[in-house]
Amino acid sequence: MRVGEPTAPRSPSGDLAWPLRRAAALHGDALAVIDGPARVSYRELAARVAALGGSLAGLGVPDGGRVGFLGVNSLPHLECWFAVPSAGRVLVDLNFRLAEAELEFIINDCGVQVLFADSERLGVAATLRQRCPSLQRVVLVDGEAGGEQLPYGELIEHEPLAYVPRSGDELAGICYTGGTTGKPKGVMLSHENLLANARHNLIVTGHAHEDRWLHVSPMFHVAGTANVFACTWAGSVQVIAPRFEARLLIELVRRESVTHCVLVPTMLAMLMDELSRDTGGGLPSIRHIQYAASPITPALQRQVLEYFSCDIVQLYGMTEAAPSVTRLSDVDHRRGLAGDSAYAKRLASVGTPIMGVEVAVRGTGGEWLPAGEVGELCVRGPNVMLGYWNREHETATALRDGWYHTGDACWMDEQGYVFLVDRLKDMIVTGGENVYSIEVESALAEHPAVLEAAVFGIPDPRWGEAVHAVVSVHPGAEPSAEALIEHCRSLIAGYKIPRSIDILHEPLPKSGPGKILKSKLREPYWAGRSRRIN
Amino acid sequence: MRVGEPTAPRSPSGDLAWPLRRAAALHGDALAVIDGPARVSYRELAARVAALGGSLAGLGVPDGGRVGFLGVNSLPHLECWFAVPSAGRVLVDLNFRLAEAELEFIINDCGVQVLFADSERLGVAATLRQRCPSLQRVVLVDGEAGGEQLPYGELIEHEPLAYVPRSGDELAGICYTGGTTGKPKGVMLSHENLLANARHNLIVTGHAHEDRWLHVSPMFHVAGTANVFACTWAGSVQVIAPRFEARLLIELVRRESVTHCVLVPTMLAMLMDELSRDTGGGLPSIRHIQYAASPITPALQRQVLEYFSCDIVQLYGMTEAAPSVTRLSDVDHRRGLAGDSAYAKRLASVGTPIMGVEVAVRGTGGEWLPAGEVGELCVRGPNVMLGYWNREHETATALRDGWYHTGDACWMDEQGYVFLVDRLKDMIVTGGENVYSIEVESALAEHPAVLEAAVFGIPDPRWGEAVHAVVSVHPGAEPSAEALIEHCRSLIAGYKIPRSIDILHEPLPKSGPGKILKSKLREPYWAGRSRRIN
Repeated sequence: MRVGEPTAPRSPSGDLAWPLRRAAALHGDALAVIDGPARVSYRELAARVAALGGSLAGLGVPDGGRVGFLGVNSLPHLECWFAVPSAGRVLVDLNFRLAEAELEFIINDCGVQVLFADSERLGVAATLRQRCPSLQRVVLVDGEAGGEQLPYGELIEHEPLAYVPRSGDELAGICYTGGTTGKPKGVMLSHENLLANARHNLIVTGHAHEDRWLHVSPMFHVAGTANVFACTWAGSVQVIAPRFEARLLIELVRRESVTHCVLVPTMLAMLMDELSRDTGGGLPSIRHIQYAASPITPALQRQVLEYFSCDIVQLYGMTEAAPSVTRLSDVDHRRGLAGDSAYAKRLASVGTPIMGVEVAVRGTGGEWLPAGEVGELCVRGPNVMLGYWNREHETATALRDGWYHTGDACWMDEQGYVFLVDRLKDMIVTGGENVYSIEVESALAEHPAVLEAAVFGIPDPRWGEAVHAVVSVHPGAEPSAEALIEHCRSLIAGYKIPRSIDILHEPLPKSGPGKILKSKLREPYWAGRSRRIN
Repeated sequence: MRVGEPTAPRSPSGDLAWPLRRAAALHGDALAVIDGPARVSYRELAARVAALGGSLAGLGVPDGGRVGFLGVNSLPHLECWFAVPSAGRVLVDLNFRLAEAELEFIINDCGVQVLFADSERLGVAATLRQRCPSLQRVVLVDGEAGGEQLPYGELIEHEPLAYVPRSGDELAGICYTGGTTGKPKGVMLSHENLLANARHNLIVTGHAHEDRWLHVSPMFHVAGTANVFACTWAGSVQVIAPRFEARLLIELVRRESVTHCVLVPTMLAMLMDELSRDTGGGLPSIRHIQYAASPITPALQRQVLEYFSCDIVQLYGMTEAAPSVTRLSDVDHRRGLAGDSAYAKRLASVGTPIMGVEVAVRGTGGEWLPAGEVGELCVRGPNVMLGYWNREHETATALRDGWYHTGDACWMDEQGYVFLVDRLKDMIVTGGENVYSIEVESALAEHPAVLEAAVFGIPDPRWGEAVHAVVSVHPGAEPSAEALIEHCRSLIAGYKIPRSIDILHEPLPKSGPGKILKSKLREPYWAGRSRRIN
């Protein structure tokens, strides 16, 4: 040991139990969660979470074992994000829009042993239970359990689990994203990853005990989960919306005096549309709107800023960064829309790196690029994932030299504003969901009539981008677009299915080395518009 | 390797270069520091820091070597906090109020090799250079260097050091505090400790690019240093005051439109006094005042709140926690002074734990105590020190079970407000400086006339507490109080010297086991007042 080196174990940086421990100690009697008629205080929430944590061993989930969740936003959904990692287990939060085949792949990939599901997903859960060898039990989080399902109500009356501190590096959750290989990849997020992002959110957003947040973005996306930890740390009131519907959202905001919400631009567009017909006097309780995850039009930005006299901010990130990386502030928005020419250009950016996260641009030779030059967007910080579950190669490719290589092409201006150029990963963002072209191309290619397929996003006023396919068919084959779409339905999630298909009886255009020239196919749809993805 | 474990190195949580890298990239042209007539932008600051870092190897400081700083707040002082740790060296920031003997002890204790000093401290530096074998060079940070001293101006024109990422656990600085054994102890703070505290400050204070902070608390205290990192991360303007003087502070605030400042209550009292005679129209630019480090009277709290229409917050912490632990918010202050009875009581507390830091109260048997019970205040979080330099025993005593045991007795109410009861460590807080009784008692005991001595704090309207001694002298000896004070002057810092001495010709009162009953000696001075220390 060198002189002066620490002789005692380091003080921990925290685990996912910390935000709830603080809220229960400081704001025990305060309202924590509103989920329909259910209202629980932070003291009650902590007690329910401790009981749920205590029940996991009895369900047969060992230390480090995986617990799945398949359902809409709900109080049990939020509770699992605290109880499962705090008990030393790993939460696998599943996108319920995925097709059964995709869910089956994920559950087998990481060996989920117990699946929490809501009653709408009970049929799917039963099928998965039969098909996935690792899956031993299904817990029903709402309604009446029967047959093989365990009722959630019993678990939250279990003997509580005593608090055991977790190492920050311990795996807390696995969040699956579409993969460039066509199969979902499990992003491994540690306690510290999720806490670091919560701290960053607290810094940039300034959550306060007095806030009333609406959780309407799905919690199976880390963007939806992220604010759960920050809100709990601050002891804010958390209002849960099980799904997005503009009219219901307006009513919920009014009834519960919601002050803060995060929406994807598609939701925001629908909300503005509904508000234009509304006579209820606006939404005066709203003080802060965040949008994220997909393109937004300048017209919508302007419409939102003019309607709401509140902070409007954009966050950009990705699951691998747990997720926040950059932010376009309210001041950025207002200066840009007021006509300040430097800021007007920056409305097309995703803003500047948030405090605590470093962003740099890397060239193809590995060199770091100066302002103005296009390269790969790289991220580092305590929020960057541990790696991809059981994917050594993809992990080693993504995490190099201490940086996460996002696969997004970008450039930064002199003041650090990040402009995305295109997705190296060939991804479509539709209504806030990421669709990897190759997943859809693979599904189409399984149809006997299809020779080859190219899938890309085309502009769509409602969804930002819509999935579009161009297929070349075998000589003599005459499939209808409807038949191809129906074929896809059994293989991939509904939101990934092409909204439109062009069928060609000739090969797709190729580059010299035989690569499909997707840019040429995409061109006519995007002529005269810049393809902004954030 | 377990399936799913990370296969790539972790993304770093950051090092002390990060805040400045961000500010230089995002706010390069913006004003960073104002120090008298000197004004540097963040781009210039980063360049100066890189050059200074590059010069250290040439000065003979090896990797991990210790660099001392002895001087008032200044641009070079601020630069050393970035350059030295970022270059993989360790900054030892010295309290210039210490006596030469104390400085000599510290420099020898941790082996300082190069000492940066300002011209007022040049004589002391020369003496230390002769007395301390490890000390090779002295750098003069202001004025004209001559003889053996190197001029700072040359160092900041050195070939810049290329950025090398540092591990968060790497030692960044050693901050000495008075020790219960009578000798100063070196608190080892890592890059992550100081960054974690900066993140916590950013969360609770919400630093912004638009802020203009005044650094008037001495940077050799970690409370003075702490805001340097948070301000830099946010890209705020940092205005440096070399020393506190109420009239100069008022002029500086007005000239530079300062918005935020941190003051100890003694400074705050002097400032209010000066403002009561001022006809310049108040200090309207001030939006935020923090106070910390020593007792404050309710009368002063009220006076400040009535004068300033800005946020007033109290922070409580200690060097070992880098330093922030709890915070009494502006809302807490205003509710308390408005007569809300629950909050009025809490004005005597140090507030609630800040987000990111856990506080718990431990009983003498090691058990964790519920609300309302008095025990030892314990702290954990990423901000807690690595340990004491070269003090295995004290480190093991202070850091146990992942918690830092502060030695402060306290209790928490049902809402998590922390009330300090007394210092287990027998410490006096006078004008924001900590004085350990035993240091003063040891100095007095070295006088030939003194048989035994007890030192404690007594109420003082200006300094919060004043150092008071009761000594028992040898039969026949008749030393004057002045002679004893003069004797202390050669051994300990001026602020530690007793302001008053009672001389007894009988033994001091003792408990059964022979321990001096200091509580009995202290009693008459504190009758009818609660001794609040924060």
